[in-house]
Amino acid sequence: MTKPGPAFYPWTVAQLRLALAQVNSTVGDLDGNADRIVAWTRRAAEAGAHLVAFPEMMLTGYPVEDLALRASFVEASRDVLERLARRLADEGLGDLPVVTGYLDAPATGTRAGRPGLPLNAAAWLHGGEVLVRSAKHHLPNYGVFDEYRIFARGDRLPVVRVHGVDVATVICEDLWQDGGPVGVTRATGAGLLLSVNASPYERNKDDVRLELCADRAREAGCALAYVNLVGGQDELVFDGDSVIVGPDGSPLARAPQFVEHLLVADLDLPAAGPAADEGPARVDAQDGTTITIDRHVLSADPLPAYPAEQPAVARPLEDLAEVYAALVLGTRDYIRKNGFRTVVLGLSGGIDSALVATIASDAIGPENVHAVLLPSRYSSEGSVVDAEELVKRQGINSRIVPIAGMVEAFEEQLDLHGLAEENLQARIRANVWMALSNEDGHLVLTGGNKSELATGYSTLYGDSAGGFGPIKDVFKLTVWDLARWRNAQVGADSPLLHPFEQEPIPEAIIVKEPSAELRPDQRDRDSLPEYALLDPILTDYVERDMGRDALVAAGHDPDLVERAIRLVDIAEYKRRQYPPGPKITPKNFGRDRRLPITNRWKEQS
Amino acid sequence: MTKPGPAFYPWTVAQLRLALAQVNSTVGDLDGNADRIVAWTRRAAEAGAHLVAFPEMMLTGYPVEDLALRASFVEASRDVLERLARRLADEGLGDLPVVTGYLDAPATGTRAGRPGLPLNAAAWLHGGEVLVRSAKHHLPNYGVFDEYRIFARGDRLPVVRVHGVDVATVICEDLWQDGGPVGVTRATGAGLLLSVNASPYERNKDDVRLELCADRAREAGCALAYVNLVGGQDELVFDGDSVIVGPDGSPLARAPQFVEHLLVADLDLPAAGPAADEGPARVDAQDGTTITIDRHVLSADPLPAYPAEQPAVARPLEDLAEVYAALVLGTRDYIRKNGFRTVVLGLSGGIDSALVATIASDAIGPENVHAVLLPSRYSSEGSVVDAEELVKRQGINSRIVPIAGMVEAFEEQLDLHGLAEENLQARIRANVWMALSNEDGHLVLTGGNKSELATGYSTLYGDSAGGFGPIKDVFKLTVWDLARWRNAQVGADSPLLHPFEQEPIPEAIIVKEPSAELRPDQRDRDSLPEYALLDPILTDYVERDMGRDALVAAGHDPDLVERAIRLVDIAEYKRRQYPPGPKITPKNFGRDRRLPITNRWKEQS
Repeated sequence: MTKPGPAFYPWTVAQLRLALAQVNSTVGDLDGNADRIVAWTRRAAEAGAHLVAFPEMMLTGYPVEDLALRASFVEASRDVLERLARRLADEGLGDLPVVTGYLDAPATGTRAGRPGLPLNAAAWLHGGEVLVRSAKHHLPNYGVFDEYRIFARGDRLPVVRVHGVDVATVICEDLWQDGGPVGVTRATGAGLLLSVNASPYERNKDDVRLELCADRAREAGCALAYVNLVGGQDELVFDGDSVIVGPDGSPLARAPQFVEHLLVADLDLPAAGPAADEGPARVDAQDGTTITIDRHVLSADPLPAYPAEQPAVARPLEDLAEVYAALVLGTRDYIRKNGFRTVVLGLSGGIDSALVATIASDAIGPENVHAVLLPSRYSSEGSVVDAEELVKRQGINSRIVPIAGMVEAFEEQLDLHGLAEENLQARIRANVWMALSNEDGHLVLTGGNKSELATGYSTLYGDSAGGFGPIKDVFKLTVWDLARWRNAQVGADSPLLHPFEQEPIPEAIIVKEPSAELRPDQRDRDSLPEYALLDPILTDYVERDMGRDALVAAGHDPDLVERAIRLVDIAEYKRRQYPPGPKITPKNFGRDRRLPITNRWKEQS
Repeated sequence: MTKPGPAFYPWTVAQLRLALAQVNSTVGDLDGNADRIVAWTRRAAEAGAHLVAFPEMMLTGYPVEDLALRASFVEASRDVLERLARRLADEGLGDLPVVTGYLDAPATGTRAGRPGLPLNAAAWLHGGEVLVRSAKHHLPNYGVFDEYRIFARGDRLPVVRVHGVDVATVICEDLWQDGGPVGVTRATGAGLLLSVNASPYERNKDDVRLELCADRAREAGCALAYVNLVGGQDELVFDGDSVIVGPDGSPLARAPQFVEHLLVADLDLPAAGPAADEGPARVDAQDGTTITIDRHVLSADPLPAYPAEQPAVARPLEDLAEVYAALVLGTRDYIRKNGFRTVVLGLSGGIDSALVATIASDAIGPENVHAVLLPSRYSSEGSVVDAEELVKRQGINSRIVPIAGMVEAFEEQLDLHGLAEENLQARIRANVWMALSNEDGHLVLTGGNKSELATGYSTLYGDSAGGFGPIKDVFKLTVWDLARWRNAQVGADSPLLHPFEQEPIPEAIIVKEPSAELRPDQRDRDSLPEYALLDPILTDYVERDMGRDALVAAGHDPDLVERAIRLVDIAEYKRRQYPPGPKITPKNFGRDRRLPITNRWKEQS
């Protein structure tokens, strides 16, 4: 390892045991989140750490959305932060420096026309005090992020000397954008760049993140530690996957995904020089801003040499394991953080509700899952048998509520045909599970997948009704993949998988042809193109914003392209009233893809 | 009138007949919007105008939201703009300069990390060509606006000489923010500042806008013309209210609100000097940006003197008239622009559904309104009688569908109590109107008001079910005010009011005590505080983001404050699945107020 940064002093190794607390926080639960910081700081102290870091907005949860505009909430975050600093000292943890994200009020300055926007901030806590505060420079305002809406940008880069090592801290997006504080870190001579993050999961993103950390470490000329939030918050799932890389970008330590974890690593870092005020006080960044370097010294001298332990480098999960874990964690946290203990769902005998039931069993235990089987005159006998077999295998609760009498009661008053009659059945089923939810306090899980949401192949207030949609961002082909993957995990040991003794999803459910069973012999393929052709078009249209010509040029069948586009475009109103569900793709329906309902644009050749 | 701007030349009056085309455009309907521009340009030419201006994003509709991220849509906007310029010339309108908003691709430059964001642009069309293009400098990203998400910012200020007058053009938010192009207009010596806008209605905003125009005219030292969009787009209603003010800020001409209108005014403006290239080519703006002045000459010499006509100065509507007009226009445009001709709604005999029926009658004619009366065992006799009286007075279509048999069919299968039983009835009613919608192609109108949405006093998939909620941003007290106001308009002549021959809403409906009629003798006051106390708390909490202490300090009852906050906070999940409805307040539920569902924050003293 060669001395990074400006080489004012001979290259001396300073050891530091760094702990990254990959913790699950809850939006708005300031006191609870503060309790978590104390508990995990104690664990870090017990592990002999010299510095412990928590994720972005750990104290408030993330994202807080417009809660940031509530002055009382901003004030509470500041108050709880100061109380937390004192409490850590009172509980004997004051000597261990703690870095954590929180919400702060701007000391001065506002953005044009937006008085008093708050800050997405990070603080160093030490000795009962808030030692230094800084705020995120780059405010992401794309995809699921709306930070330019609610935050003012920061203009400081803290560099804090801990046991002779200068540690610079930045926040999440600061790492993703060129210029700004990361670009000037090398000039500060920092020996470690610490980034606190709340970076939501999406498929294949972990590879991108690791590469980014490696690139930024090389740019900053020092080791880089990346601590990420873990847990679900409405549509977002934070996957953890915290990592430490060396100045050359090589991974030194890595936390497991989708679980809380304290990542502890002994690092050999370059010792800083003797003077606290070395280096510039203000630096011009590449992006045209001027950054104030905020230097503090906690402990100027390197520690005496001590025997280092070998840090753990977790292997990332394979693709389907990662997606399934995101769905389970997102579902579990939505249920629990919203105060529910049990769920109810309609079990049709089809693959979608079967997978949702399995995710629910994994998330909160089969004993807390209530299935309702709602056969109609069009239900195949196999559907009920298959659903009952799933109930038996997983040990979930179930009841059968035939809907024929209810359908007849409506038909006595109304003369319905075709789609109106089909939708009526779907809505009667929803009425039943909503009634059971109201009566027994269950959260309703909705079984729609992304192919259905995209094409509007669902009944508003019918099968789309519920409080949370675990597979709403999962295309149909991936639904099947996940069902097979989950069945193959019998015997696997994981905090995100229930220890079923046999395959939780009966093979008959996986192999049957998809049907809504709302009219005799109905099949999905009567209304939709084959999923093997449809899903790739939907991916390119929905997630990549490709227009008609680009889709055809990419090799999709022109007729299917036009049919798919039309279906997607006219279903926007339905999606707006759909419940939230965990985002797993680069662009989900909901926070990510925001289109007008009233929209006459037609993609044409 | 004294010569504004730098007085390089003697003060000479140049006459100009300006036309502001306050037109209704439709999102995505590029060809239709281009047709409208041609038709209104012809009207302007027939009125002898020398310059005609259309609103912001006239060609694409506004807001286009993430449609701006679709490359095919951006390209189509550019193509249609160029075709429009040629078509205007082909149709003999090429000599009349046209200024219009559209969507453009950036010539160069991107914002960090966001390649190729498009531009919220304005163009001058003349002689079959696109003469000059510019883009919005200030991108609003607060409230209902997300422009930083989808646009790159502009850096040019066009100054075009028309009959000897230098006309500078800016776009909407450029007027609202200090600095930027308006701040440098004086330095360009422009004789007229033309602002193209898509500024949505909210209560009392017209006063703010007029004052803003006056302030900016004085700042720019020249007359200011403000052309605004009119019409509904999902939740937004654009009210027109286009205006021209003199350099001293005094109103010279003003268009009526909520209707399409060509505002024509003969203006005496300062003639520019003889040289086209006078003044600076680049100017440093107060906000730190550098702005390129883009000068063009269409016609260097002032017109020979001609007899000026006195322009019209419309009087703004009074408060309730304005709110009601916004609801009617927003409802009409949502129905028509989404391809519906008829609506269906449940008519309970209460004030909310009565007002919604009346708005619908005004919006699309009573003959296109279908009411369904759904009496249950708990409906009072008066409710049915009152609803039938409204049907008769307005001449809308109606049918009665008793729900007792349907309720019994559910109760045969399910043992429900209390809230579960009440909600079941509400959901059965929704099933009926959704079935009629599916069978007959009606759009479903939803009757919930803002007090209900705020407090969650509604049934998910029950009374909250539908495609559009005309009064979702109207507090209950205002519902009553509007009903009385509308009844007082019998005999009034307005394109937004149906010519009823008697009061459309029976007095009995207005004076009865509010009830959901879901259990015996139920009254809203059993569950909610009196609306006279509740609505002001909701206004301060929801629209002003005041915390618990601030609400109490403002004089609200502490117990009611805590009760109201709790009700509002736990109902977020319901609001997420509510249909859109016209925004009339400073902060609506929907685009405006974006809070997490999973949220443990409790306002405390």
